[in-house]
Amino acid sequence: MTIQSERACSAPEGGNRPPVDIGLAERLFDELRRRTGTNRGITRTSYGLGEQIAHDMMRREAHKLGLEVRTDPGCNLYMTLKGRETGPAIFIGSHLDSVPMGGNFDGAAGVLLGLAVISGYVRAGVRPPRDITLMAIRAEESTWFGASYIGSRAAFGLLTDRELDEVKRSSDQISLGAAIDAAGGDTAFLRSGKSFLDPSDIAMFLEAHIEQGPVLIERNQPVGIVTGIRGSFRYRDAKCLGVYAHSGATPREYRSDAVKAAAALVMDLDTAWEQLAEDGADLVVTFGQFATDASEAAFSKIAGRLSFSLDVRSQEAETLKCVHKILLDAVARIEASHKVRFELGRLTDSKPASMDRSLVDALSGFAAEDGIPAHVMACGAGHDAAVFADAGVPTGMVFIRNANGSHNPDEQMDIADFAEAARLVSALCLSPPVEILKARA
Amino acid sequence: MTIQSERACSAPEGGNRPPVDIGLAERLFDELRRRTGTNRGITRTSYGLGEQIAHDMMRREAHKLGLEVRTDPGCNLYMTLKGRETGPAIFIGSHLDSVPMGGNFDGAAGVLLGLAVISGYVRAGVRPPRDITLMAIRAEESTWFGASYIGSRAAFGLLTDRELDEVKRSSDQISLGAAIDAAGGDTAFLRSGKSFLDPSDIAMFLEAHIEQGPVLIERNQPVGIVTGIRGSFRYRDAKCLGVYAHSGATPREYRSDAVKAAAALVMDLDTAWEQLAEDGADLVVTFGQFATDASEAAFSKIAGRLSFSLDVRSQEAETLKCVHKILLDAVARIEASHKVRFELGRLTDSKPASMDRSLVDALSGFAAEDGIPAHVMACGAGHDAAVFADAGVPTGMVFIRNANGSHNPDEQMDIADFAEAARLVSALCLSPPVEILKARA
Repeated sequence: MTIQSERACSAPEGGNRPPVDIGLAERLFDELRRRTGTNRGITRTSYGLGEQIAHDMMRREAHKLGLEVRTDPGCNLYMTLKGRETGPAIFIGSHLDSVPMGGNFDGAAGVLLGLAVISGYVRAGVRPPRDITLMAIRAEESTWFGASYIGSRAAFGLLTDRELDEVKRSSDQISLGAAIDAAGGDTAFLRSGKSFLDPSDIAMFLEAHIEQGPVLIERNQPVGIVTGIRGSFRYRDAKCLGVYAHSGATPREYRSDAVKAAAALVMDLDTAWEQLAEDGADLVVTFGQFATDASEAAFSKIAGRLSFSLDVRSQEAETLKCVHKILLDAVARIEASHKVRFELGRLTDSKPASMDRSLVDALSGFAAEDGIPAHVMACGAGHDAAVFADAGVPTGMVFIRNANGSHNPDEQMDIADFAEAARLVSALCLSPPVEILKARA
Repeated sequence: MTIQSERACSAPEGGNRPPVDIGLAERLFDELRRRTGTNRGITRTSYGLGEQIAHDMMRREAHKLGLEVRTDPGCNLYMTLKGRETGPAIFIGSHLDSVPMGGNFDGAAGVLLGLAVISGYVRAGVRPPRDITLMAIRAEESTWFGASYIGSRAAFGLLTDRELDEVKRSSDQISLGAAIDAAGGDTAFLRSGKSFLDPSDIAMFLEAHIEQGPVLIERNQPVGIVTGIRGSFRYRDAKCLGVYAHSGATPREYRSDAVKAAAALVMDLDTAWEQLAEDGADLVVTFGQFATDASEAAFSKIAGRLSFSLDVRSQEAETLKCVHKILLDAVARIEASHKVRFELGRLTDSKPASMDRSLVDALSGFAAEDGIPAHVMACGAGHDAAVFADAGVPTGMVFIRNANGSHNPDEQMDIADFAEAARLVSALCLSPPVEILKARA
């Protein structure tokens, strides 16, 4: 088999490609909103009712389309359209859970996009070169179990016994393991550490997701092509400790002011950020929580304690390392100059995940070919795609323009932008990059 | 009468002065601690039980010493040792209330110091040149009624009907007027706006108080001589408003980060403070409360709101004005550069109060003469002395060294330092500055 000739004969170019089934997606978005909406936003609890409704809907649609349907021990749902040839399948996937009182599009848009692509093929009678497996993933949102990517990690046998037993759902304190079993999963299998998915069976993983930041809105582009998912280091519970003292009676030289010292740290990191950004580094730095002690602080007291969180993200491991050193240096310097003490607390981190370069190029190529304005950009939020990239699967992500951020009822995705993203994914699945198929043969 | 000759013949110098009655003060400190102490610190509620116990103790001791005893419509207590001559009296005074779970010395030290001085005269058979009136003042602490200097303002007819009717005690929601009447006061008189005290009847007002900052401890001096009480401007409920957004997905240029903007304001004011201090200005700047919204902020969200308080104090009205302008300029600059909005909220302020220059000089002279190490310094906290200075009474303050600040059970005053301060006040009352007596004749 010559991949080159394969592509040449099977992939209709541009206007000749089968249309994506936007009508189906619109109907399912409406049904999801109707059935998993509350008086305030959408709630699709991980391994709970709303998520199950969404999975049942996808299963129903998959059967209608004649897809092969499977689940795994973590209750993820796989819906496969057979391709013309054997070999590693192309996965399209995203999650169907939402945060409490969230929006209708975060997660679900990626699954419905896959269904729109596949239904487009089925309706046009087009068989893609490889199996296309649409994966509806469970429990991506960390708000429910305080852990991210539970479904995709389950598929790769990466959940620990500790997580299964000790992690409790925020809404009802049910353990993760009990919730998975109640949803029809198989925690005995998950505990064995065996991987349901074999990365070598997957040619590539594609995730479409609404953008959670303002970049596409600000740049007026319907679609984003993601180069990488930012890694992070985080101090979720850091403290700056000074000495409470009388605000009027304590001269400058005798103060140990936690507010002033912590503000100096914010400014030091911001200066470093500005310089690194000028040098072309990818970086975001956020002190999201920053608070004096509610019970002890007073307007007439110098603050003796300030608690804060720090979230630093970058596509580049080197940049994360550099900023961490800048942080520790600044902390030491400020401790000495401001007579305070920092307790940074527990450090957590995640590695940056690079999207596959030839997928980025191929998506950019189809966008240019079809006249779809697309912005090549980093992804700042975590996604299931990171788990697949980490497992060695060539991974790509497409962003859909979205206003008002995500994780809130005001998510606002235009269905026309969704259609543009679906056309990109549809084109890619019909003409996957030759070098990837070769490497994964 | 020649004041000069009067002083020469009546005032025993240095070692010849009557000793202050430290034993009495020690016994009364012990009794106060025993009778107004709880399992955690001291509580002498304004116009409440603990304060009344303290006033009753002072009245008892005044009778024992043969002093003339009066109260006023605000329930302040006046205990007078007759002098050799008529003319404006010398007032010594401080307050007997405390904050809840406070210390034994804040306020009471000043009253017991007056008693120790007067008892010293009585025991030695010394009659001072002028009447010495010890004033035990009510309700100085703003924690109870949310208003400062209630007792001393009542004595000058300065309480408003609004305060008497609307201000409620934090512990039991009883109105100030009802509390004053319940303690035996006369709110009908207070409402008339008449002043019980006539400033022209008072030659000078002297207040001794524990220092509430660390200056005397740090400088290893038992006594401070106060040059002025800092005035202030305050924003107790200010806000910086940005836009909540995803910490990972929102690039630097699209952020409206309330934490970063507020930290920039802290740093701008600190830089201004540093420069003004180098130029010799008296100034303290405190952001005592500084907090993102507990219900909305998260480690993975850029903060859209931060509430803060700002307390700026100086002895110099000009410096306060200058810093206020610097603040407003910085706010405008940061609003533009950080895409945030500040709501500073209600501004409150108080005027600086200068201590009388000849009293500062006289106290410094006695300290030098008697070998008492004394530090000439500003006072950063508010005191009843400010009300007397504001009424045009020549006013002086003496600080007593104190560890661990005040308004807490850990106040730590050494009785030896108290004795040094009492000796200074005793000397001054026997030999008041000639120019003051002349001016007030």
